[in-house]
Amino acid sequence: MKNNFEAARQPGKNLYEQVCEKIRDEIISGQYEAGDRIPSKRSLAESLQCSLNTVQTAYAQLVDEGYLRVREKSGFFVADLEGILTGGLQSTAVVLPEEKVSPYLYDFSYQGIDETSFPLTLWRRLSREAMSGVFLSSSDANGSYELRSSIAKYLRLSRGVQCSPSQVLISSGSEYLLQLLIQLLDSDTIYAIENPGYEKLSQLFRSNRVTYRPIDVDGQGVILKQLISSDADVVCITPSHQFPTGSIMPVGRRLQLLSWAQQSDRRYIIEDDYDSEFRYAGKPIPSLQGLDQSGRVIYLGSFSKSLFPSLRVSYLVLPEHLCHRYDELLSFYMCPVPLQIQKTLARFLSGGHFDRHLNRMRKIYKGKREVLVTFLRESFPESTIEGAPAGGHLVIRMKSGKSEDELVQAAEKAGVKVYGLSLFYSRQTKVQEGPSILLGYASLSIGQIEEGVALLRRAWK
Amino acid sequence: MKNNFEAARQPGKNLYEQVCEKIRDEIISGQYEAGDRIPSKRSLAESLQCSLNTVQTAYAQLVDEGYLRVREKSGFFVADLEGILTGGLQSTAVVLPEEKVSPYLYDFSYQGIDETSFPLTLWRRLSREAMSGVFLSSSDANGSYELRSSIAKYLRLSRGVQCSPSQVLISSGSEYLLQLLIQLLDSDTIYAIENPGYEKLSQLFRSNRVTYRPIDVDGQGVILKQLISSDADVVCITPSHQFPTGSIMPVGRRLQLLSWAQQSDRRYIIEDDYDSEFRYAGKPIPSLQGLDQSGRVIYLGSFSKSLFPSLRVSYLVLPEHLCHRYDELLSFYMCPVPLQIQKTLARFLSGGHFDRHLNRMRKIYKGKREVLVTFLRESFPESTIEGAPAGGHLVIRMKSGKSEDELVQAAEKAGVKVYGLSLFYSRQTKVQEGPSILLGYASLSIGQIEEGVALLRRAWK
Repeated sequence: MKNNFEAARQPGKNLYEQVCEKIRDEIISGQYEAGDRIPSKRSLAESLQCSLNTVQTAYAQLVDEGYLRVREKSGFFVADLEGILTGGLQSTAVVLPEEKVSPYLYDFSYQGIDETSFPLTLWRRLSREAMSGVFLSSSDANGSYELRSSIAKYLRLSRGVQCSPSQVLISSGSEYLLQLLIQLLDSDTIYAIENPGYEKLSQLFRSNRVTYRPIDVDGQGVILKQLISSDADVVCITPSHQFPTGSIMPVGRRLQLLSWAQQSDRRYIIEDDYDSEFRYAGKPIPSLQGLDQSGRVIYLGSFSKSLFPSLRVSYLVLPEHLCHRYDELLSFYMCPVPLQIQKTLARFLSGGHFDRHLNRMRKIYKGKREVLVTFLRESFPESTIEGAPAGGHLVIRMKSGKSEDELVQAAEKAGVKVYGLSLFYSRQTKVQEGPSILLGYASLSIGQIEEGVALLRRAWK
Repeated sequence: MKNNFEAARQPGKNLYEQVCEKIRDEIISGQYEAGDRIPSKRSLAESLQCSLNTVQTAYAQLVDEGYLRVREKSGFFVADLEGILTGGLQSTAVVLPEEKVSPYLYDFSYQGIDETSFPLTLWRRLSREAMSGVFLSSSDANGSYELRSSIAKYLRLSRGVQCSPSQVLISSGSEYLLQLLIQLLDSDTIYAIENPGYEKLSQLFRSNRVTYRPIDVDGQGVILKQLISSDADVVCITPSHQFPTGSIMPVGRRLQLLSWAQQSDRRYIIEDDYDSEFRYAGKPIPSLQGLDQSGRVIYLGSFSKSLFPSLRVSYLVLPEHLCHRYDELLSFYMCPVPLQIQKTLARFLSGGHFDRHLNRMRKIYKGKREVLVTFLRESFPESTIEGAPAGGHLVIRMKSGKSEDELVQAAEKAGVKVYGLSLFYSRQTKVQEGPSILLGYASLSIGQIEEGVALLRRAWK
């Protein structure tokens, strides 16, 4: 046993779990028979050169799971295999979750949300109500009509998107929707992505084996001249709040982009409106899709930031002609969102709760942003804060003489996780100016933001 | 208004909904101002050439939604637009679900489940319990450890699959997992699919722009000689219960397939174990993966048949070396299953409920199959019933002198939906013998099965 076990020793795993697994496997594979005595704890500990305690924990676990039986003063015996194989799942096995303890005191992550402000009780109630109806059979392949209709209404009223429910396609996460788009559009389509931009886009296009070109971003979004001189057909942009720089694309650039897209039937703009719900100054800026008169904009939205990330619901609004193409080519894909979730979400939207939630979160995030900006200005007066007052992150351009790497590492040493802007570049560019740090504030409390910045101030001295 | 409206008239839609949509759009786009009077019901009905009733229903709906206001005896007026744009979602809009009335009296579908036997109360309770914990943040990209561990345990004990939780990858639906596999394996991989086989596979490979070869199936599964002489690297099979023919692959063929796969590092067997939980005679047949000693089998499972289709949870068990490759190349994809669902399902598994549910459903489906077989034998004594006593469908080879098309059409005329086996062929083959009809029985009650076969008996006379 010793050699096998040592050979299989897995570095990332708890030793006692490995002992459990080993014995379980031996029992299942028939190396023991029911009633067989297994090695004493002491002898196994010796042969594995581990502590007696480890073996003791493992044996206790296996007794709990029903693999072993213990006989007072005579040791451990293999339980009846038949019983395990048919009823094993009925044992009250303790499943050990993987430990995920953040090594940081404060993580200025750009991905989280303010979990403490989510209306959990309401969500639970709507979820219960959703399950009082029919939800076992698969619904519409594009998403339930109820949900598509609620989303279309929200988008029309709040984002100025021109759409009917039949143009809405519901799926799990933006990556899944982009995969569908890649299959929907011509196979030789060349994509353009923002540089810097959402880091998963380049991974996605690479793993889907399609060609993509990074296009540099200035303070107004993608640089049109670069886009025009590239061979790209489809450009993915975040005009409401460029990720990560935070700029808002002005209407002039929007119209130029639309006119670029109108020049060929192969051209499309994918408008990723990922955090457009959160804008803290002035009026909401309507979507680019709302300006489009010729069906060249594909609108992409998500509830990951406006509700919560583990919900995994995103949606596309397709131009009419692509809807027909989708129905023809791709309608065999079933909507991957469980109907139970679709129904809960539809209730959240149609009951007016989404609107109220957004109004509330806008105030909360606005407050957090203001605190962060104030502390940063006090702590680093020579630096510039970039990005519009929107979303859940900002970018600070540092003038401390330290490089971006040095800043990130000094912060990490002080227990604070921040994100260097260079993470989001697919290629280096001339537009990039000096060391810039991205700070997300949605998931931290105001107190944590204050303490985090205080630590940064010391670390970046 | 008339011309626009008539041009946009959508065939699949209720007329009054179209009227609503039209007026809504005109209000939102600013063609009316708040307080404007809109055309009288009678004049609109005349101009649209529809009934007064239709317009009446549409106007009432728009009043409910807050777009219109009614003034006693003076008609309908446009409501305050400002109020709608900011608070429109709070109106108690009636969302109209799409009508989906089956045109058939009895549908011998191969996709449904017995919904009446699902433990709904239990599922609701577990779902509530799952939401009492933390479920807002995204969990592990491959699926929560808790769920992967429960699935691994179930597969080890009930399907003889060799796996640890780290080999399990959770996603939404088999099509999504196959898309990931296509990205994981080399781009020039050639796939082989069963002919006849699951009809979505050829659509999936086509839309993912990869090459695939249909391989004919005999009574034991894919014909090895054909596979060997093809240039395919990866073969997708359903050895536990071939879809649609229903045969079980004997161990001899399994070993031959494994030895084929071992001959190259590019070769894999994708074992789709879609309804393996349901076998009604003899012992369960362990998975092909369990026989594999060299990491060439990728195991694919789903809860669509064993629990319910709208759950949208499927999983892969990857060989160790592909796990490493996955982590390297594709771990940027977030698990698309909402954590709320993952937690509910993990509880269903670890609490022993899945085992009990399967035991119960096995008896129910076995009973249905026996009734169907008995009635078919009585009604069509010269015909042969094919497929092992397993799963949720069977195939009957008819000897009535009628062609497959004639049989399907005669059944439809009698209000019974059945499925000709030729639907599942990607190409015609010599192995195909005579008109064969696929009949699913999972979603019908015993009474419905009896009545359905009685109608078929008359229709196929």
